[in-house]
Amino acid sequence: MDNKLMLMIPGPTPVPEKVLLAMAKHPMGHRSGDFSEIMAEITQNLKWLHQTQNDLLILTASGTGAMEAGIINFLSPGDRVLVGCNGKFGDRWGEVCDAYGLQTERITAEWGKALDPEQFREQLEADKEKTIKAVIITHSETSTGVLNDLETINRHVKAHGEALIMVDTVTSLGAVSVPVDQWGLDVVASGSQKGYMIPPGLGFVAVSTKAWEAYKTAKLPRYYLDLGKYRKDAAKNTTPFTPPVNMFFGLQVALQMMQAEGLENIFARHKRLTAASRAAVKALGLPLFAPDDAASPAITAVAPAGVDAEKIRSVMKKRFDIVLAGGQDHLKGKIFRIGHLGFVSDRDILAAISSLEATLLELGYEQFSPGAGITAASKVIAEL
Amino acid sequence: MDNKLMLMIPGPTPVPEKVLLAMAKHPMGHRSGDFSEIMAEITQNLKWLHQTQNDLLILTASGTGAMEAGIINFLSPGDRVLVGCNGKFGDRWGEVCDAYGLQTERITAEWGKALDPEQFREQLEADKEKTIKAVIITHSETSTGVLNDLETINRHVKAHGEALIMVDTVTSLGAVSVPVDQWGLDVVASGSQKGYMIPPGLGFVAVSTKAWEAYKTAKLPRYYLDLGKYRKDAAKNTTPFTPPVNMFFGLQVALQMMQAEGLENIFARHKRLTAASRAAVKALGLPLFAPDDAASPAITAVAPAGVDAEKIRSVMKKRFDIVLAGGQDHLKGKIFRIGHLGFVSDRDILAAISSLEATLLELGYEQFSPGAGITAASKVIAEL
Repeated sequence: MDNKLMLMIPGPTPVPEKVLLAMAKHPMGHRSGDFSEIMAEITQNLKWLHQTQNDLLILTASGTGAMEAGIINFLSPGDRVLVGCNGKFGDRWGEVCDAYGLQTERITAEWGKALDPEQFREQLEADKEKTIKAVIITHSETSTGVLNDLETINRHVKAHGEALIMVDTVTSLGAVSVPVDQWGLDVVASGSQKGYMIPPGLGFVAVSTKAWEAYKTAKLPRYYLDLGKYRKDAAKNTTPFTPPVNMFFGLQVALQMMQAEGLENIFARHKRLTAASRAAVKALGLPLFAPDDAASPAITAVAPAGVDAEKIRSVMKKRFDIVLAGGQDHLKGKIFRIGHLGFVSDRDILAAISSLEATLLELGYEQFSPGAGITAASKVIAEL
Repeated sequence: MDNKLMLMIPGPTPVPEKVLLAMAKHPMGHRSGDFSEIMAEITQNLKWLHQTQNDLLILTASGTGAMEAGIINFLSPGDRVLVGCNGKFGDRWGEVCDAYGLQTERITAEWGKALDPEQFREQLEADKEKTIKAVIITHSETSTGVLNDLETINRHVKAHGEALIMVDTVTSLGAVSVPVDQWGLDVVASGSQKGYMIPPGLGFVAVSTKAWEAYKTAKLPRYYLDLGKYRKDAAKNTTPFTPPVNMFFGLQVALQMMQAEGLENIFARHKRLTAASRAAVKALGLPLFAPDDAASPAITAVAPAGVDAEKIRSVMKKRFDIVLAGGQDHLKGKIFRIGHLGFVSDRDILAAISSLEATLLELGYEQFSPGAGITAASKVIAEL
């Protein structure tokens, strides 16, 4: 049906109507007092969302641009870094490190499994000479629906004492608690088209005092992504390069909505959506790709047996106007992913699960009792 | 008056209502066939605007990000480059080159004057060993309203034979003809909030075959700004990193509007707006900052004598809801700049000039006959 598409992918995520309308306002000059007021409010609310007093910098870039900025501003050529790789995005941060000539050591896990914190502990404890300058991990691995154990890995980084912890929180921020100050996270990068409930186009980086210390001697070249420039200008509620002012208009409204809902309610909602999705998928006899104890609050990945993942996506889109994500790289055709991040309600999950049931019936998959998925989801929604 | 602001700054420029409304549509998945169709249309129309068959790449970045990408993808550390510096943006490209460890040689001119093509010729002719790898210049210097003589400087670069020509066309593209293929421009970078008539958030880079040859051996580090990734994906009408899909919706409509107006009409309109603005300013007895033979088609900078530039800007905004730009860096307080780039009509110029006359009267400036400015502007509009 024309104009009826519902996005249940891990990004872009659905955008509230009042955010869309705010973005349709005429631009204002980015060097005006009016714009600085908006930027001041946004920065304050971003700090609230990040649970931090650290600098919170806003870039015109995708999440990858934000994460690259988070890496290259605090390191020098040849620096030794540990990178957690258990999906497309972990792999990408390894590629960024390689591109900049860092001494990149990968700690890997199979796609669909969580990184093992013990492997980080071993490497960090063995590093008596403190040559490891940074540990770089992806919190919620968007490609597989796995939530890595950031809290434990970070504890090992803190025990090391020297290394910075740099985290891709692209699909975790705004979905699950990321207490930046409490955990002492040094670099935290994310992108707008996720938990923030606005379209793609902005990247965010939170930077600790310890990271700024490293910045003073870091020698990797940069200009557009030089966070020192953003920090200097953010102090005056402005940006070093022209910001996408209409995206700021949208973000201002979205953050006001998030504040009205409250952090705890936002996290509880994502927990409920995740649990309902997983319970439903199990009840339908479809294998979940990520284990329960490492379930992303943003994405539920399913590796269907006996029915084709791409056919499911195709029918879901054509018949029910619901867009699900497919698998990336070697997972193409093997999994589908249900995004439940950002502006997603219980009703959306019920619509998705009931449409999934109808799709499975249409495809002749019979390894479930019709209604089982929606019953399981409803129970979770009633209880959580 | 609330909600009545009229932007006459060199960016963000005014945005047509139908572009704003297109941007308020719900995002779509950027890996969908629907999005690829939009990207294919946009890319085709961007090539039309650039008068080129070269690759035309779209980045989530400001104009500075696009220009940095244009520089760092085709050079290696220590490469010798000539950078034209006669304003804030020329200076900025010099800083980018320094940040990446290039051997940067600046050819300077006083702010408000055009670069002297002869100085480029001398340096290029003296380079018998062909050590100059690139010549980097700003076409329309936004900070001063000066249009540099790109055609002549480029002719000297072509005579050299080895060096690439890299051009910041941020405030010239869409205002004056930049025949990329006819002139053989290797790297042409621009930003969305200018002649494109959409808000800030996108950067564009056109890349020649000769530049792609240099790319093969270029060793400056990059990842997010690695244009090879964008080229590879653009061939499939997609992007390596999540694009700001709502900005694409707006750009699609804006480019359709530009095609309907036609290139020649667009350039003629900007020529008329520039001539009308300059004639009016002269008739008001206010000194123009850039000479007639190097007048930017996007910005008219004025260095008022006997009346304070910042006071003019303040009254223009408070009384007439017209935002003019001030001077940057050492020109702060010394000049004001009238932007007439993009979605600007003859009526807008008449409104601005008549408001400027009223402002001058209010400020007690008496070195003009009331009505002289608007008469001069009207004459130009009638004739051109």
